[in-house]
Amino acid sequence: MGERPLRTSIATSDEQRITVRGADLTDDLMGTLDFGEFFYFHLTGEMPTDSESRVFNTLLVTVVEHGVTPSVIAARLTYDSAPEAVQGAVSSGLLGAGKTFLGSMQDVAEIVQDGVSRIENGDSSEAVARDVVAAHDRLPGFGHPEHEPTDPRTDRIFEILEEEGMDGPYLEFIYDVQDAAEEQFGSRPLINATGAIGVGVSELGLDPIVARGIALVARSAGLVGHLNEEIHEPMARDIWDVVEENVEYQDGETR
Amino acid sequence: MGERPLRTSIATSDEQRITVRGADLTDDLMGTLDFGEFFYFHLTGEMPTDSESRVFNTLLVTVVEHGVTPSVIAARLTYDSAPEAVQGAVSSGLLGAGKTFLGSMQDVAEIVQDGVSRIENGDSSEAVARDVVAAHDRLPGFGHPEHEPTDPRTDRIFEILEEEGMDGPYLEFIYDVQDAAEEQFGSRPLINATGAIGVGVSELGLDPIVARGIALVARSAGLVGHLNEEIHEPMARDIWDVVEENVEYQDGETR
Amino acid sequence: MGERPLRTSIATSDEQRITVRGADLTDDLMGTLDFGEFFYFHLTGEMPTDSESRVFNTLLVTVVEHGVTPSVIAARLTYDSAPEAVQGAVSSGLLGAGKTFLGSMQDVAEIVQDGVSRIENGDSSEAVARDVVAAHDRLPGFGHPEHEPTDPRTDRIFEILEEEGMDGPYLEFIYDVQDAAEEQFGSRPLINATGAIGVGVSELGLDPIVARGIALVARSAGLVGHLNEEIHEPMARDIWDVVEENVEYQDGETR
Amino acid sequence: MGERPLRTSIATSDEQRITVRGADLTDDLMGTLDFGEFFYFHLTGEMPTDSESRVFNTLLVTVVEHGVTPSVIAARLTYDSAPEAVQGAVSSGLLGAGKTFLGSMQDVAEIVQDGVSRIENGDSSEAVARDVVAAHDRLPGFGHPEHEPTDPRTDRIFEILEEEGMDGPYLEFIYDVQDAAEEQFGSRPLINATGAIGVGVSELGLDPIVARGIALVARSAGLVGHLNEEIHEPMARDIWDVVEENVEYQDGETR
Repeated sequence: MGERPLRTSIATSDEQRITVRGADLTDDLMGTLDFGEFFYFHLTGEMPTDSESRVFNTLLVTVVEHGVTPSVIAARLTYDSAPEAVQGAVSSGLLGAGKTFLGSMQDVAEIVQDGVSRIENGDSSEAVARDVVAAHDRLPGFGHPEHEPTDPRTDRIFEILEEEGMDGPYLEFIYDVQDAAEEQFGSRPLINATGAIGVGVSELGLDPIVARGIALVARSAGLVGHLNEEIHEPMARDIWDVVEENVEYQDGETR
Repeated sequence: MGERPLRTSIATSDEQRITVRGADLTDDLMGTLDFGEFFYFHLTGEMPTDSESRVFNTLLVTVVEHGVTPSVIAARLTYDSAPEAVQGAVSSGLLGAGKTFLGSMQDVAEIVQDGVSRIENGDSSEAVARDVVAAHDRLPGFGHPEHEPTDPRTDRIFEILEEEGMDGPYLEFIYDVQDAAEEQFGSRPLINATGAIGVGVSELGLDPIVARGIALVARSAGLVGHLNEEIHEPMARDIWDVVEENVEYQDGETR
Repeated sequence: MGERPLRTSIATSDEQRITVRGADLTDDLMGTLDFGEFFYFHLTGEMPTDSESRVFNTLLVTVVEHGVTPSVIAARLTYDSAPEAVQGAVSSGLLGAGKTFLGSMQDVAEIVQDGVSRIENGDSSEAVARDVVAAHDRLPGFGHPEHEPTDPRTDRIFEILEEEGMDGPYLEFIYDVQDAAEEQFGSRPLINATGAIGVGVSELGLDPIVARGIALVARSAGLVGHLNEEIHEPMARDIWDVVEENVEYQDGETR
Repeated sequence: MGERPLRTSIATSDEQRITVRGADLTDDLMGTLDFGEFFYFHLTGEMPTDSESRVFNTLLVTVVEHGVTPSVIAARLTYDSAPEAVQGAVSSGLLGAGKTFLGSMQDVAEIVQDGVSRIENGDSSEAVARDVVAAHDRLPGFGHPEHEPTDPRTDRIFEILEEEGMDGPYLEFIYDVQDAAEEQFGSRPLINATGAIGVGVSELGLDPIVARGIALVARSAGLVGHLNEEIHEPMARDIWDVVEENVEYQDGETR
């Protein structure tokens, strides 16, 4: 044992027992919790209530799938090039879960958690919301290239938050941000699914990184589904062809 | 539209509707299915029964966590080096879900599905099992460095399969493989969790790649949990120190 | 210090010195060796001769670039989704360096090294070549969807091997494999660039994994070049559009 | 052909010719350029002079290797878990080339290029340098946990820049930043290798992203070298053991 032990509160095991957060994996958790509940327990060390379970599972379900996205294209192409390594194909797709799309969930969770914390310390919600709008060139959690006038996933998440009595200060605050954005830009931007998930994670009392984690776990399921289809109904070679037919080479230099 | 459309049966979307496997994501699935059920539906296009849901969720729960494994070490070190990209840290860990450990789930599913298919075509189960043992230097799904005399996760998975009436031909066949292995090696190797999951996936009627997919989705949840801890209670630098203290440089050449 | 030190012969460092393979990085290697020579030295612990340097550098140059390949598409899409993490975009592309395309370099190196070893032990080259052809459904290192009647990169690599006096037994043997393949299939398959690199690596006396390593290092340079262009002349969004326009959703189920 | 062709100036190919930046890959480049020169040509479309070649190759050589780093640990562990996919092991290591360590090259290149641009527009170098110091909590390119009083790689890079007549405004400016940092912090922080590479890339007239690219290409070579050793002299299992011996599980919860 070194001088600084590597401390973890997550899990340990011996010959006949795997302990996760103080519970016995096989006796207490397997067969009892669904996967979403187990993930929640793994993250927090607390058993979710029925409401927490429903909300957390909903957030996961929301982002599994949105068609043939860049992540899916990357994963299918990688699988075709390296079928011996499904883990590589899934990773190739997950690496696109960054700032532009899914990463904004984490940003939204940070924004609403910081905002509500300032409000609890006495600032007015409207002023904090205006600060948030002013501080961002591109406001995370708002706008969508396809959905309008609302993102239907947001409507459903907010409905479920209400049904489960979890429509608290973070949900209230994002509406103030929406108002401030409308005031600033002249038109009312929709709250997209990543915004709704950032709110949902916050209402559950979870750390912003969990919002990013939800995206990664959910998308890995979506990618596995697409690879399962790719094996039986391949489209990777046709994707390549379709792209190649549109490539045009031009002499010239870049620096 | 090109001459060969890129066909998918998984999902499509328009302004107000995301369709997954023919169902409306927001109206039919969010808030109704838990994540495991949705993943099953995404893979198969069929709603799981309660038994299928319980078994599928159990398989996912089984492999989320097994302590500070090589995957966890890689993910924590990568997070420390590149905290701006949580998706990279999770991918770094997932890339270890290969042949040596988790990949064997897929191998087991292939073995038992091929085996049962041969048996259904008239071969004797004992003969097929002996062929399986003979064909592998290292039999996937058997043995464990820590657990004995059984892998407790296997015991629990098989128990749940029985409870749900899914103790069918694949489960029966893996016991015959175990018998054949004992006959061959002189001692009875335990069926480990990856073996049990390969069986469970087969009893559910799913493709072997789904076994690999279960590992990837489950482990991504486990890795997110460890990164959530790493942020609050970091161990990455201490892991590096502990390794470095033990490194010994020796002059010499390798080819 | 634990009981089993972690031994490496590659490098060590102290306050004012980084030692690589027994040489001083700053005094002996930087400014003296080009990158290809340094990579060779890092791998082998031996300074390359001028001939070895020219051949090894040529092998690296060969596979940097081949247009808008699936690897490039994956990397550009990933960069667009996660511009904060260039390392993720490069990794996303590298993960396609698998069995289907670039991985075959390693397979070819294994085939010719095993083959020449058998020949040195007395087998006839023709017989060994026929065994190689018989053992592979899809012969690694042969055939190309675009180039014909030869792969121009192969012609050039073999020319340089001759110029440098490195046209030895591995080069001779791959021609025997080509003869055996022609005999078997009725038409003469071309030796592609991955075949030529497998031969080149073997003539240099390097381990087959180095062939795979050459592919990875070279392609990472190619991917960086494409990302450098993507920043100034983006095509990722147009790739996505072009793909999406061709996607056709059909109801139905997959298992 | 769609309405927006996907334009690239990098490469195209036909049956007997691969064109890179207007040159014939096999006739003009293979056997003529070393890998570093080819990478430079690939990035810029211009043949490097001898001085540019020496400097660019030196920058690449500098960061191939620095012992058993977190990247190397991740790659070796991943290889042990997934030996079927060398590309996954290399990627697992590359994903650590982020903000904390190697990513700072890109930051330094941005800082010195912005700084020199402001100076050329009439600001005083001292004032710009003070702004740079004031704007960063942790100044990229400065400080090192092991090397002192200087980073020997920096000394060597700057010496070679002088020998090749490339000791221009970016080099001059980073010394002003160093002065400003000393003034601010009371002690003179050393310029580390990532700082020196950021300067070198800028003196070569290259885009900041190239600095990150150099790190990725160079480290992929280093990782291949370590995996080549791992195959023959494995340490991954011992790394795992050494870590596991130091892990201490404690009950408790994290949020």
